[in-house]
Amino acid sequence: MDSKLFISENLRSEVIIFSLMELLLPNPANSCPLTTLGFLERAATAYTDCPSIVYNNTTHTWSQTHRRCLQVASSLSSIGVERGHVVSVVAPNVPSMYELQFGVPMSGAILNNINTRLDAHSLSVLLQHSETKLVFVDHLLSSVVLEALSLFPRHIKTPQLVLIDDDASSTTPTSPTVDFIDTYEGFLQDGDPKFKWVRPKSEWDPMILNYTSGTTSSPKGVILSHRGIYILTVNSLLHWAVPHHPVFLWTLPIFHANGWGYSWGMAAVGGTNICLRKFDASTINDLIKKHDVTHICGAPVVLNMISNSPDFEPLKNPVQILTAGAPPPAPVLARTESLGFTASHGYGLTETGGLVVTCAWKHEWDKLPADERAKLKARQGVKTTGLTEVDVIDPETGESVKRDGETLGEVVLRGGSVMLGYLKDSEGTKRCIGENGWFYSGDVGVMHPDGYVEIKDRSKDVIISGGENICSAEVESVLYSNPAINEAAVVARPDKYWGETPCAFVSLKRELNEKPTEKEIIEFCRARLPRYMVPRKVVFPDELPKTSTGKIQKYLLREIAKSMS
Amino acid sequence: MDSKLFISENLRSEVIIFSLMELLLPNPANSCPLTTLGFLERAATAYTDCPSIVYNNTTHTWSQTHRRCLQVASSLSSIGVERGHVVSVVAPNVPSMYELQFGVPMSGAILNNINTRLDAHSLSVLLQHSETKLVFVDHLLSSVVLEALSLFPRHIKTPQLVLIDDDASSTTPTSPTVDFIDTYEGFLQDGDPKFKWVRPKSEWDPMILNYTSGTTSSPKGVILSHRGIYILTVNSLLHWAVPHHPVFLWTLPIFHANGWGYSWGMAAVGGTNICLRKFDASTINDLIKKHDVTHICGAPVVLNMISNSPDFEPLKNPVQILTAGAPPPAPVLARTESLGFTASHGYGLTETGGLVVTCAWKHEWDKLPADERAKLKARQGVKTTGLTEVDVIDPETGESVKRDGETLGEVVLRGGSVMLGYLKDSEGTKRCIGENGWFYSGDVGVMHPDGYVEIKDRSKDVIISGGENICSAEVESVLYSNPAINEAAVVARPDKYWGETPCAFVSLKRELNEKPTEKEIIEFCRARLPRYMVPRKVVFPDELPKTSTGKIQKYLLREIAKSMS
Repeated sequence: MDSKLFISENLRSEVIIFSLMELLLPNPANSCPLTTLGFLERAATAYTDCPSIVYNNTTHTWSQTHRRCLQVASSLSSIGVERGHVVSVVAPNVPSMYELQFGVPMSGAILNNINTRLDAHSLSVLLQHSETKLVFVDHLLSSVVLEALSLFPRHIKTPQLVLIDDDASSTTPTSPTVDFIDTYEGFLQDGDPKFKWVRPKSEWDPMILNYTSGTTSSPKGVILSHRGIYILTVNSLLHWAVPHHPVFLWTLPIFHANGWGYSWGMAAVGGTNICLRKFDASTINDLIKKHDVTHICGAPVVLNMISNSPDFEPLKNPVQILTAGAPPPAPVLARTESLGFTASHGYGLTETGGLVVTCAWKHEWDKLPADERAKLKARQGVKTTGLTEVDVIDPETGESVKRDGETLGEVVLRGGSVMLGYLKDSEGTKRCIGENGWFYSGDVGVMHPDGYVEIKDRSKDVIISGGENICSAEVESVLYSNPAINEAAVVARPDKYWGETPCAFVSLKRELNEKPTEKEIIEFCRARLPRYMVPRKVVFPDELPKTSTGKIQKYLLREIAKSMS
Repeated sequence: MDSKLFISENLRSEVIIFSLMELLLPNPANSCPLTTLGFLERAATAYTDCPSIVYNNTTHTWSQTHRRCLQVASSLSSIGVERGHVVSVVAPNVPSMYELQFGVPMSGAILNNINTRLDAHSLSVLLQHSETKLVFVDHLLSSVVLEALSLFPRHIKTPQLVLIDDDASSTTPTSPTVDFIDTYEGFLQDGDPKFKWVRPKSEWDPMILNYTSGTTSSPKGVILSHRGIYILTVNSLLHWAVPHHPVFLWTLPIFHANGWGYSWGMAAVGGTNICLRKFDASTINDLIKKHDVTHICGAPVVLNMISNSPDFEPLKNPVQILTAGAPPPAPVLARTESLGFTASHGYGLTETGGLVVTCAWKHEWDKLPADERAKLKARQGVKTTGLTEVDVIDPETGESVKRDGETLGEVVLRGGSVMLGYLKDSEGTKRCIGENGWFYSGDVGVMHPDGYVEIKDRSKDVIISGGENICSAEVESVLYSNPAINEAAVVARPDKYWGETPCAFVSLKRELNEKPTEKEIIEFCRARLPRYMVPRKVVFPDELPKTSTGKIQKYLLREIAKSMS
């Protein structure tokens, strides 16, 4: 090759590299932050007069919902709520709860949906930890919130309160006394329906704060970004194959990871949100018939409620039911499906924003006997297209476990919807997000030969009761505060109705004159914990079983608890 | 407030700001690049033995397709193809064409699907401009590709060639002579099915190169990122409400914006790809019946072909048909739907990676008469959830036009799937991507009072014939090269079958002894342009109509062309 040619080849190669380098950079037209908030203005255009929310005898359209959410954002903005402030909500699945999923982040604030089952003490801890500026409070929950504020140390400013009082069928509502700056409706009506909503500056901006546990001691506040929520939402619609204009019955609490993203998802597909304050099997039955419901979500306890109800009528049209939080038991699945539901099973954590693994169903499995089908459906499954990878690894070596459906390991995940981290807990964040790019779920599972993940054992810390996560360490710390107790360990005990309930094993101090009874221990906990976290059963062994290094062998305790159920 | 408290309040506020700042950064578990390439390994796990590709009498499963794509990527890698190199394909919708949509980018290379209708000269221009390292060539197109390479200047290295020769039913295939390094099947079989595919380092890395025009003069090579393709694909599935396991008939050329993203999309939902080499109405009819096709895409010319065919039998089960590229004419829509198709209409450009605006349908429109329904469906519509914004703006002021369905303006878009830019054409990129964040489509449209966009006039440069974009400036530059021609302007002439065909208006030089005939001008073009770009009609006015500033008034010429059709 002569030298002239050689130079020209080199130059050409530089041209293409330079040219590609320039193209690697985002440009002004494609670098707009991903966010689900824009789904609402699209819904107002594409689904203008279609029903967005149905609640008792009230129906809103997407154009109304769009206006109302802008009004909420506008009012928040005008009382000084800014980008990065936290605004909390304590409410069941009423229409305002749905609206706030858009309205709060559209003001630039971070939305914190709080578990409505918390007690005043836990609530107080979370409101202080999150430095909440304002709380929207359902009228039936106003006394517990007011009590929570009364527990604030005197030098810490309490948040402002807005009263959600939109349920005419309830008991006499608390009037907006001096405690509340306004009612929800009044607050909303002050807002400008043409408000220019506050767009995230970056798609990595925090949008959502969800507490998973730590209500009594060390709060774990999961922060999710606009980008994460977008990826989660779009893929959650895709993998449940949600069509246009679904009718979605809100049996899943929105405070549970924002209803697994379907809160924003319904705006993307022009769905109708059937809101409700509380429900039992007969409410579900009535609402499905009345509104031609097509989609419903819930923990297995909801499937259980449906399948155990003697009044539940077989469905005229099939209804999709999506469950997660724990594997649905085979007989519950079989009974639910025999009523006309099509059940799907998925897996996710508050830390992943919603479901990121689903048990993708294969046609060939349809031919199997019901119990084998249920066994397959109880597996957590494969990654969604919103997740980059899921694996089960040996926690010692970090290597993938054998794909034999037997070797236990920790379930690890990576993908766009994984949280930014825990609020004010960089140590806790580092513990579960490794430099190697994995998020450590804390769940123990196996990898089946076909590549499906199955969770075999929850992390030692977690008990799942009626869809609620209970951190055993929290219950233990309350038990340890009892002067009669020497050592305590809390594990899950299988329960037909709740899935699991907490079971406490306590060894008492030797020098005691009078030993506490099971009932007294339970009452001690009830005074200090939200009701769902209180142990249903207390066992008094002389000593707790331990490993040679002194670690309590919870595995053995779980076996004992199981044998007692 | 005493000073001690004041300090503590300030500190707290610093803590939360610092803590949030830390959270704004992506972490190792959530910053994995978005890419559609991972859909394939997921499909191999979730849809293992389900059919992925059906072609004549051959069926592949998703597990096979996964292995085969890894093998292609492995072979490319082993012959020296690297991250950022361009690999091109010239092939119809045969199985290898589908596999290469994954296989090429999984080697790290940028995939360039080339229009199979181009002539040797245009092909040669694109292969040189893209600095293609290797071309996969269908055996029926090998002579035109070999001719294209013979047109390379001697000092420029020609790309390597691999022969796609997988169609037993065809005429005697060219044997892999010295021109080809291997056949596709041989090349693939050399690859390692356990190859670790090359993941993008950043989601902004270029993945796709698609030429939109400029085949004769200034090539416009659209570069799309992994991120852009991901956003486009996921949202294209969502807005067409594609369920699990669709059966997709590949009537849309994959070289048209990668089949609007459904090439990767089918892997996400476990679809079956019905491949075909070429088709007419009776082929479509047969394949729909044979394979229970559920989904089909195509330019309006495909709907036209179906609706005009006397043999087309009404469908037993409804088939979804998605059209774009030009508004479907009302009678064509009505006839297609009467056969049992459900038609949807969308809009996008190669520069947006696929469809980003869709005519979201409202239930209430179902009740309207057929012609009103068709008129509504012919509107381009509203943004998908993959697009951040679409607007119609006054090109002078940059302001939104009135929402009156009448005021003309330019359609502008912004969103995650907008291209990185044109390859080696930063000036061209700057002309269409403004600092204000808009991508200027070049299409002229109106905004209806309900927020739906409708395109009224294509940009002056573009004629759409049978789904192909023809840049009128290119045809004009060929006409101008004819020594007898004084001035030339090419506009679209409506055509019942093709939608539009190019119509040339030429004024001849005055001093000519012998004037060329229409036939001679057409033949002159045919020798220098791909067949579909050649004017079907040539008009010889004495002078072309001009504005006071000397600009040719194409608007008037279009009116004349229209009146002649």
